[in-house]
Amino acid sequence: MNIQMHFLTSTLVVLTQWLQLSSAQQYILTPEQERNANRTLSVGYVVYDGYTILDVFGPLQFLSDLSWPFDMNLSVIAKAAGPVHSRPPLHHGPDGMAMDMSKMVDAQIVATHSFETAPPVDVLIVPGGVGDLTLLEQKDRSIEDFVASRLDTTNYVMSVCTGAGFLARAGVLDGRRATATKRTWDHVTRHGKNVTWVPNARWVQDGKVWTSSGVAAGMDMMVAFLRHIYGDPVVNMSVNEVEYAPVVDPNWDPYAVIFKVSFPP
Amino acid sequence: MNIQMHFLTSTLVVLTQWLQLSSAQQYILTPEQERNANRTLSVGYVVYDGYTILDVFGPLQFLSDLSWPFDMNLSVIAKAAGPVHSRPPLHHGPDGMAMDMSKMVDAQIVATHSFETAPPVDVLIVPGGVGDLTLLEQKDRSIEDFVASRLDTTNYVMSVCTGAGFLARAGVLDGRRATATKRTWDHVTRHGKNVTWVPNARWVQDGKVWTSSGVAAGMDMMVAFLRHIYGDPVVNMSVNEVEYAPVVDPNWDPYAVIFKVSFPP
Repeated sequence: MNIQMHFLTSTLVVLTQWLQLSSAQQYILTPEQERNANRTLSVGYVVYDGYTILDVFGPLQFLSDLSWPFDMNLSVIAKAAGPVHSRPPLHHGPDGMAMDMSKMVDAQIVATHSFETAPPVDVLIVPGGVGDLTLLEQKDRSIEDFVASRLDTTNYVMSVCTGAGFLARAGVLDGRRATATKRTWDHVTRHGKNVTWVPNARWVQDGKVWTSSGVAAGMDMMVAFLRHIYGDPVVNMSVNEVEYAPVVDPNWDPYAVIFKVSFPP
Repeated sequence: MNIQMHFLTSTLVVLTQWLQLSSAQQYILTPEQERNANRTLSVGYVVYDGYTILDVFGPLQFLSDLSWPFDMNLSVIAKAAGPVHSRPPLHHGPDGMAMDMSKMVDAQIVATHSFETAPPVDVLIVPGGVGDLTLLEQKDRSIEDFVASRLDTTNYVMSVCTGAGFLARAGVLDGRRATATKRTWDHVTRHGKNVTWVPNARWVQDGKVWTSSGVAAGMDMMVAFLRHIYGDPVVNMSVNEVEYAPVVDPNWDPYAVIFKVSFPP
C-alpha cells in the first residue's frame, strides 16, 4: 500500500503544482475554464437499447477521470431507469424482413434516471447505436423530445457516431456545422434542416454543439472538449494515465475515404 | 430505412466474400482460427467495484462487434450478480488515512453471474481498477481464487492494466512474461513468482496468457488477440467500422518513459 499511497500523494502534489502554475504563471485559464473549474458540472448521458458500447464508455473514461480533480455528477438517462442493453433490439427492413441481432453479446449499463426524473444538466451527450433503427421504426421520438426540451438550459450538447441523427431530428443542428459516423453517413445526414454536414472531420465544434465521427472518434472529441472546458494541464495528465494517444487534429479522417464519403484532394 | 438496409446487406456481402476468399485463396486460417470460427466462444469478464471503465468496455467493443460474424456469448462475473460500480470504494492508506473517492462519477455495469454461478469460459478477462486496493486491504482473494480455479479449463486468460496483479496473485503468471500499467508499475509487479515483467510493452502474449499495459492498451491487445484467434480480414473490417486506428506494434510504449519505468536506449 505504501507504493500506491506514495503514487497518489505524488499525483496530488504534481496536480496542485500544475494548477498553481496554471492560474498564476504558465497556463492562463479562459473565463469559461475558470467558471467550469469552480462549479459542479452536471453531465447527462442519454442511452437506449442497442447503444454502441464505446460511444458511451470511451468518452466516459475521460469524464470519470476528470471528476476526481473537478466536481462533476453524472446522470445516465433512458426511457426508464434500470438496465439498458447494448444488444440491438429487433428491427425490420423496408420489406418487413426482420433483423434479429440477438445473437450478439450484451453489455448492460444501469440508467439512473428516466426522461421525466432527469435533473438539469450542463452537458448532454447522445451516443450512437443500431438501436436508433428500432426507435425510428417505432416512430419513438422520446430522445428527440427530451433533447429539444433541454436545449436552452444546457451549456454543451454532444453526440457520438449516429447520435448526431437524434440531434438533427431534435432540431439542435439546424443551421449548424456537424459530423457523424462515416460508415452510415447517408443514414444520418438525411436528417435535420439546413445542416452543413462536414464529411472530413474527426469531430466538429459549432458553438455549444460538439459532434463526432464514428465510435472511437468520441474519445478524441471528449479529450478536445475537456481541454476546452478545463484547460490542457489536467487533461494532459489524464490522457497519459489512460495511456491513450488522442487524435488532436479535428480534420484527421481516413474513414471518410475508407467509407467513400469523401476523397483525398 | 432503405439506406441502412442497403448498408447491412452490402456489409454482409463483403463479409461473405472476404470469408470465402479467406478460406479458399487469399487468407489461410490457422488451425486455431478454424477451430474458433466454428465454435461458440464463451467469454467471461471479471468485474468488481472500482473497475476502470475503459479497461472493461474498450476491449468489449471489439468483442461485441465480432459476436455478429462469429458465435460468442458473454458472462459478466462478479462476487454477486447485479450492478457493479466503477466508482472506487473506500480504502485506507498505510497510516489508516481514508481515501474517499466517492465524489467521482459512477458507471454501473450489470454482472450476469456470480463466481459460483459462472458458466465455463474459453476466454477469461480481468480488468484493472483502483478497486483492487480495497480488495487487497480486505484480504479478499475471491477474484484470485476464481481465476486459479478456471485456469486449466480456459483457453485464453487476459488482463488489462492493474488486472495483471490479480493474475499474478492467482499464480497465472508464474514463470511467464507479462506487462501491466506503467502508471502504477511497482504496485503490480511486486506480485507473482518468477514473473518476467516487460517494462516496454503495449501488450505481451506468453502462450495462452495475454497482458496489456494501462487502460487504452487493452483495446490494442484485444484487436491483436482477435486477429490471432479469428484472422485479419474480419478484424480489419471491425476496426474500420469502429473508426479506431489500433497500435499494432506490441513494443510501442511511450508510457514506460513518461512514467519512468524504462528509458529510451
